[in-house]
Amino acid sequence: MSTLKGACIIGQSGGPSSVINCSAYGVIKTALEDPNITKVYGAYHGIKGVLGGQLMIMDEEDPAELERMLYTPSSALGSCRYKIADPDDDETDYKRILEVFQQYNVRYFFYNGGNDSMDTCEKISRYMAKVGYECRVIGVPKTIDNDLMGTDHCPGFGSAAKYIATTFMEVLRDAHVYDTGMICVVECMGRNAGWLTAASALAGLHHEGPDLIYLPESDFEMDKFVADVSGRFSKTGDCIVAVSEGIHYADGTFVADAKTSENDGFGHAQLGGLASMLASILKEKTGAKVRGIELSLLQRCAAHLASGTDIQEAFQAGKAAVEAALAGHTGKMVGFECDRSNGGYVCNTKLVDLNKVANFEKKYPKMWINAEGNHVTQGFIDYCLPLIQGETGMVKVNGLPRFAQFRREFVK
Amino acid sequence: MSTLKGACIIGQSGGPSSVINCSAYGVIKTALEDPNITKVYGAYHGIKGVLGGQLMIMDEEDPAELERMLYTPSSALGSCRYKIADPDDDETDYKRILEVFQQYNVRYFFYNGGNDSMDTCEKISRYMAKVGYECRVIGVPKTIDNDLMGTDHCPGFGSAAKYIATTFMEVLRDAHVYDTGMICVVECMGRNAGWLTAASALAGLHHEGPDLIYLPESDFEMDKFVADVSGRFSKTGDCIVAVSEGIHYADGTFVADAKTSENDGFGHAQLGGLASMLASILKEKTGAKVRGIELSLLQRCAAHLASGTDIQEAFQAGKAAVEAALAGHTGKMVGFECDRSNGGYVCNTKLVDLNKVANFEKKYPKMWINAEGNHVTQGFIDYCLPLIQGETGMVKVNGLPRFAQFRREFVK
Repeated sequence: MSTLKGACIIGQSGGPSSVINCSAYGVIKTALEDPNITKVYGAYHGIKGVLGGQLMIMDEEDPAELERMLYTPSSALGSCRYKIADPDDDETDYKRILEVFQQYNVRYFFYNGGNDSMDTCEKISRYMAKVGYECRVIGVPKTIDNDLMGTDHCPGFGSAAKYIATTFMEVLRDAHVYDTGMICVVECMGRNAGWLTAASALAGLHHEGPDLIYLPESDFEMDKFVADVSGRFSKTGDCIVAVSEGIHYADGTFVADAKTSENDGFGHAQLGGLASMLASILKEKTGAKVRGIELSLLQRCAAHLASGTDIQEAFQAGKAAVEAALAGHTGKMVGFECDRSNGGYVCNTKLVDLNKVANFEKKYPKMWINAEGNHVTQGFIDYCLPLIQGETGMVKVNGLPRFAQFRREFVK
Repeated sequence: MSTLKGACIIGQSGGPSSVINCSAYGVIKTALEDPNITKVYGAYHGIKGVLGGQLMIMDEEDPAELERMLYTPSSALGSCRYKIADPDDDETDYKRILEVFQQYNVRYFFYNGGNDSMDTCEKISRYMAKVGYECRVIGVPKTIDNDLMGTDHCPGFGSAAKYIATTFMEVLRDAHVYDTGMICVVECMGRNAGWLTAASALAGLHHEGPDLIYLPESDFEMDKFVADVSGRFSKTGDCIVAVSEGIHYADGTFVADAKTSENDGFGHAQLGGLASMLASILKEKTGAKVRGIELSLLQRCAAHLASGTDIQEAFQAGKAAVEAALAGHTGKMVGFECDRSNGGYVCNTKLVDLNKVANFEKKYPKMWINAEGNHVTQGFIDYCLPLIQGETGMVKVNGLPRFAQFRREFVK
């Protein structure tokens, strides 16, 4: 291992989560405490902040505010959705990044995000190696979608899963309150992977979970769906259904397609409005009282209901990234490997090659979908349950959260 | 005061809340402990359970499960929306109720709900007096809408207010995460009264509240709304807006009217879909990235985020109802009177005549709306803030709530 003295940058990218700031805090705190890291910069709005020279000096922030990052949702440094070119095609952005790195003697770069962010990370790592600028680049995983390769699970998923399971329990109580019965369709995020929607099944541990669950990993058939729901409703007088925003027909068309109108910076379709569409169809077919609920942003920002395990693991991921970089690693992402044998749960960090992560998606496994394609199996429950354990340590002021507030001292 | 020995019935009615069961528990616990109350019955699905002779024997339930009612959302005894006839027009239901009361020697009747439930309560009280059957009838208030007359505030409101304020803080963090800006419209419940929507302003205590708030107590003008939002958005690049489901034009037409398709049992229009409608209009007018979020059932069932003050006061309301009945009162509703002088907060119960409550609605006061009609004033913050203080004591099992589960032993 070679000692490398210099500044570090931490940036956040992509859709936020309840615990993305725990990882950033893990990076910042560990970096601030290490003598080899001379300065800790926060890239304002991710890589766009690097390109624009907007670097927040984290050394100047109040340590008490930094610690509040553990209980502050969304990206406290600001996020972006910026698709960086391939360095072999267009070096413009990389030359600018190199210039900024050189100007502030940045020797450590940490990027906190999902698949697309790991792609950015991998490209920067590759470019710096190519031009011979010594900079250690480590990715810190984040995504509520839980779809990153090379890791048992992703920081952010456990908290969203806990929010979804808790919300299903509460909504089920509400939806079953009258003797007249009701069909309730709840839409969860997860464009291409069903992990989040599957998490609704955890509510079943206390017998208050959804009757039916539809994931993007099974092709959707409207007739089968209507028959499933009607069957359940006519039997019990109630039905609560979890659907992923990304459910699609066998030809790949999203069920919500009629509602697709916008694209994000990466060309992903923005989905929404599916729950009310399905609720209308069910109303027409069954005549039942129906309600469509979209969990929307709430499932990814409800820090008040974050998982204690997730908070702690997200912090560890950030800490491990800095330790790995100090130990000489680069071009890696921190991942988790977990041991669930004998009903226990031990989670350790490991390092994964960035090029084995970037641009891949880890789907929800088919073996954890039931034969009917409308619920999950025990295997998933055993996998997911440890991730939602423990509560947040969020301190409230006047009955409300008090999130981190930064001074935002930028470099000149 | 005359001693009256006999059984009691507690029933729940109308839309549920996070703490309606705290009030029911206040009734049940106090009644179980009093020697004059010989048996405690829970009416299954409110007055419909009385009419159908479906009475749960609460004495048979596990005391530990009863105590869990403090942390269990929605009506644990089941609710109904049943419009009872006026006894002067049609005595059918009352004769049946009297029959059940006589059969089980019911001398105490407690009804836990909102305006319509107090109406039911008042009519039963009047009928029993008319026919000379001695039965003490006391209403226990509940409504997240906070629109009951004769009380400083309603149990259920504080918890919904805390949920709404917390959610606005979290959503604001999420909506502001990118540098590209966004307009976010969040729809809150409150058909005719703006209390819940106004509660979003509490998030402003930590500078994370909505930019604009629209209540049903001000006539809505679409042009003014678009101008307000556009103005704010062009100035700061972001805008978060709270709207009540019940906003309406000067002629009384609901803005959400196009979406109105159903009625509940009382002839109230069921509203919804307003947020996405307004978001589409704003997108068309501004070209900004927009998102519409409907808080839907979540705002009234999120027991995990209930206000500790609300839980305690809701319990007190139930307890006070039993104590008042035992002391000889009838035809009353329990209300709160609060002293907020010198920045303090003391809340005591009182008794209000049911006929001063039934079928009235307490609107949000105009003096607490700003001159522009698009935000609230400090007076409301001072009123509302004490109501959201303190946290729930909810115990979790396996990282999830464990709600009350009843045996449901019915009378033969």
